[in-house]
Amino acid sequence: MGEFELIARHFARPVRRAVLGVGDDCALLSLSPGQQLATSTDLLVEGRHFLSTVDPQRLGHKALAVNLSDLAACGARPLAFTLSLALPQADEQWLAGFARGLFALADAHGCELVGGDTTRGPLAINISIFGELPAGQALLRSGARPGDDVYVSGCLGDARLALEVFRGTANVPGEAFERVRLAMECPQPRVALGLALRGVASSAIDLSDGLLGDFGHVLQRSGCGACLEVDAVPRSAELAAQPLALQRLCTLAGGDDYELLFTAAPAQRQAVAQASRAAGVAVSRIGRIEPEPGLRLVDAQGQPVPNVWTSFDHFRS
Amino acid sequence: MGEFELIARHFARPVRRAVLGVGDDCALLSLSPGQQLATSTDLLVEGRHFLSTVDPQRLGHKALAVNLSDLAACGARPLAFTLSLALPQADEQWLAGFARGLFALADAHGCELVGGDTTRGPLAINISIFGELPAGQALLRSGARPGDDVYVSGCLGDARLALEVFRGTANVPGEAFERVRLAMECPQPRVALGLALRGVASSAIDLSDGLLGDFGHVLQRSGCGACLEVDAVPRSAELAAQPLALQRLCTLAGGDDYELLFTAAPAQRQAVAQASRAAGVAVSRIGRIEPEPGLRLVDAQGQPVPNVWTSFDHFRS
Repeated sequence: MGEFELIARHFARPVRRAVLGVGDDCALLSLSPGQQLATSTDLLVEGRHFLSTVDPQRLGHKALAVNLSDLAACGARPLAFTLSLALPQADEQWLAGFARGLFALADAHGCELVGGDTTRGPLAINISIFGELPAGQALLRSGARPGDDVYVSGCLGDARLALEVFRGTANVPGEAFERVRLAMECPQPRVALGLALRGVASSAIDLSDGLLGDFGHVLQRSGCGACLEVDAVPRSAELAAQPLALQRLCTLAGGDDYELLFTAAPAQRQAVAQASRAAGVAVSRIGRIEPEPGLRLVDAQGQPVPNVWTSFDHFRS
Repeated sequence: MGEFELIARHFARPVRRAVLGVGDDCALLSLSPGQQLATSTDLLVEGRHFLSTVDPQRLGHKALAVNLSDLAACGARPLAFTLSLALPQADEQWLAGFARGLFALADAHGCELVGGDTTRGPLAINISIFGELPAGQALLRSGARPGDDVYVSGCLGDARLALEVFRGTANVPGEAFERVRLAMECPQPRVALGLALRGVASSAIDLSDGLLGDFGHVLQRSGCGACLEVDAVPRSAELAAQPLALQRLCTLAGGDDYELLFTAAPAQRQAVAQASRAAGVAVSRIGRIEPEPGLRLVDAQGQPVPNVWTSFDHFRS
């Protein structure tokens, strides 16, 4: 199978919304009147972002999910994406599985593949994604204000718990492990929640490198600090069954969560609850923005918890 | 140096035209009224697309150049790009050189870096590029019509000649080798020519995999054939000094040319000449589109030349 046959067989699908899809020098997109383009890109490398043994269908899902999650964090509606693939060889079965996972999630979000590039090389996947949103309505990292509530969606820490099981440093029994593994391999991007939070949230970010590190970006860009109740961070029953130190590691510095962290003025609490219901995604209030710089961690009794965690960094880890 | 320091030091520059650049979940772009977005993406992998010994400044240039070349082939005006980098380590000197080459070319084309991703991994570079053009005016591969002239810009084959010198199968003396090596490592994307050809050319493609293969895509999409005069394909003095068989290999199936191949009706000959002058890029007429499918090669005397060349394919080579 050659390069063009590979593309034709697995990745060339007619576009519905884009002006021009796979097969020319460029793809062409039109934005609706008054809309801005939101774009993001993520590179996944074997051995860093996923294990060589991962189910290709789940990998196809995840490669797109992490990009959809970036659109969600801006409150953008998904439109299209491009896919760059470096493959050690053209493995039919692997490609079929990868494409199945990729397109299932793409179809669920009305997001079309419009172009890409394929080459031989160490397995790596780069997706660039495109969404649109009304000019001036993007949720940004810089909008948090003192007094705002701090929220996260869903449960945090399961992906890291699964990783610790793979590393042999944690133990989760059979069926429960399948659930936490699914959190790691098939994250659900919170696109509907991001859309529902437009005009409600003051800032947002998607959690990919760990809560504390990612929240730090919001605080830095917003020029303020926060108090965070560490044990209020929502977690699954599987993670809640683990020792407290591991729970805190996984929820606060776990990484790979792909949930949204966002802030909103207390006057928006009803609106936040409504957005949560509309999107069908639980949200939990976990802290408050404060004028003093820095992030203060407290437990349920309000006692200080020393910040001993480091967030993920590709060039430090 | 950590991931965020690496980005801040080498890749975070304020944007002038984009709504939002590096540092949030998404970048935001506005299109001018009536414009469509043109986007393309290219993945370069060490050992496949470049040698490990390549000057990082030239690599930075080339990584963007191959993407600008795709915009050129559509007649789109460059706006912005995102950069994904997988690096074996955070090498200050390499990064500084890479960024210098990248931004020099970006600045020359008014194209802003608006986002990206960095990770540790085998050296790989993915750029996604964004341009705009008036709705309906893109140069497509599908527009060639019987009777159209076939043109290419610049000279073809020097990049392949340089590769053959590296492979030890060709010999080019000192200073001349520096010139052909520059063609391989620092291709000049024909953006101005692509813009000047809007409304003049009937189809266009950029030459990256070799003339015959890339032209084949135009013929297939346009549903016609062509006659090509193989020795009319323009070549440098350095290549013209090589044996004829090598000249033909390099010009017809060389790859990495990043020149434009385009077609235009004979009534447009003056307009093509004017576009060439306006862009400051030579163009040469090398054949004619015909109604019969297939590509017929002839020499200067009109005698058939058997097509013995194969174009580059990442999964066959």
